[in-house]
Amino acid sequence: MNTLLIGATGGVGQSLAHQLAGRVSRLWLSGRNGQILAGLARDLSALAVPAELGNELEVQALAEEVGPLDLLLYAAGAVQRAGLREQSMADLERLTAANMGGLALLLKYARFNPQARVAVLGVYPELIAVPGLSAYVATKLGAEGLVSVARKEFRREGVRFCLVRLPAVATGLWAPLGGAPKTALHPDQAAARILEGVLAEPLTEVLEIR
Amino acid sequence: MNTLLIGATGGVGQSLAHQLAGRVSRLWLSGRNGQILAGLARDLSALAVPAELGNELEVQALAEEVGPLDLLLYAAGAVQRAGLREQSMADLERLTAANMGGLALLLKYARFNPQARVAVLGVYPELIAVPGLSAYVATKLGAEGLVSVARKEFRREGVRFCLVRLPAVATGLWAPLGGAPKTALHPDQAAARILEGVLAEPLTEVLEIR
Repeated sequence: MNTLLIGATGGVGQSLAHQLAGRVSRLWLSGRNGQILAGLARDLSALAVPAELGNELEVQALAEEVGPLDLLLYAAGAVQRAGLREQSMADLERLTAANMGGLALLLKYARFNPQARVAVLGVYPELIAVPGLSAYVATKLGAEGLVSVARKEFRREGVRFCLVRLPAVATGLWAPLGGAPKTALHPDQAAARILEGVLAEPLTEVLEIR
Repeated sequence: MNTLLIGATGGVGQSLAHQLAGRVSRLWLSGRNGQILAGLARDLSALAVPAELGNELEVQALAEEVGPLDLLLYAAGAVQRAGLREQSMADLERLTAANMGGLALLLKYARFNPQARVAVLGVYPELIAVPGLSAYVATKLGAEGLVSVARKEFRREGVRFCLVRLPAVATGLWAPLGGAPKTALHPDQAAARILEGVLAEPLTEVLEIR
C-alpha cells in the first residue's frame, strides 16, 4: 500500500505516521519542516519528502516522486486567531495554502492506483464557527467543497474519498488559541480512530469521530 | 440608507442596482468594469466606485469613500469550469478573490451604522457540487464560512448578516458552463426576491430562494 501522509510533522500527523509505519508497504512522509521530517522518517523507516504546499512546483515534484498512491492522507493544517477587522491577507493566504490550496494541488498532480483512498482531515463546522477563526473556517469549508467535487471527478479513476470530521485534538494547532480544551482527544487516540475508519472496507464518505 | 452594492455589473448585480435605485437614499455601485459601471451609475443616479476585489488597497479606498453603511450587498462572483486535474492556480486565485477574499477585505475595512445589514449571495452547495466546479464550490463554501464567523464578530457592532441561497439565475456567470439551465430564474425575479428578503424586518439569517 503506497501511502503518502501530508502534514506528517503536525500533532495528529506524527501520531498517524507512527501508527502507519509497518502497517503499509511504503510510507512517504511530507511536511514543511525538513529536519523534523527527516528524523521522523529515520525513526519509522519511512521516506521523507519535504514540500511547501503553497508551491505548485514542489507539490508536483512530490507527486512525481511518490508515484501511484493507494492511500493519500491529508493531515496538513494551519490555524490563526484574528478578528476579521485585523485579518492580514498574508495570513489568509497562508491558511488557504495549508488547509485548501495544497489539497487542490495534490489532487492535480497525484497519480492513483485503482481503488485508492484519499482521506482529508476536516472539522465539525458548527464547532469552529467562533470569533477570530474566520480564515480557518473559510479554508476548512473550502476544502470540504473540494472533496465534494473531487469525489465525483475521481470516480472514473476508482479513487474514493473520506472526509474525516475531527473534534478538538490536543495538538500544537491550539497554541495560537490559548491551548486545547480539556475534552480534546489525545493525538494517538485520534490517529487510531482515523486509521480504523480510513482503512475499513467499504470506505465511509464522511467519518465522524467524537 | 447608505448602500453599497458589490458586483453591480454582474447579471444579478445589474438587476439589484436597478431595483435599489430610488429605494435607498444613497447607492454606491462597485465592480471591476469601470466603463459599464459608470454608465449604470449615470442611468440610475447612483455613484460608481470601481474596485478590484483582489486588491487590498483598492478595497480599503472603496470602504473609506462610501463611509458608514446601512446595507452592504455582496453580489460579486466568478465561476470557471475545470477539472481538478487541469485547474490552474491562477484561476483558483481569481475565484478566491471574487467569491471569498473580496468579502473578507470588505469586512475588514467597511464601517457600519447601527443595525446595518450585510447580505451575501450564496448557493445551494448540493446543487453546485458537480465535476468541473471545484474552485467555485470551495470558494463559495469558504464565503459561507466567513459569514458564519462574521455574524458573531459583528454582533457587538449591531451588524446583521443574511446569507442568500440562490438557485440557478440566467446570467453571464453560466457562459463558461454552456448556458443557464431552462429552469433558471430571470435576474430581475431573483433581484426582487433578494431585496424583499434582505430589506425585511426582522432579517432572516439564511434566505432560501427557490
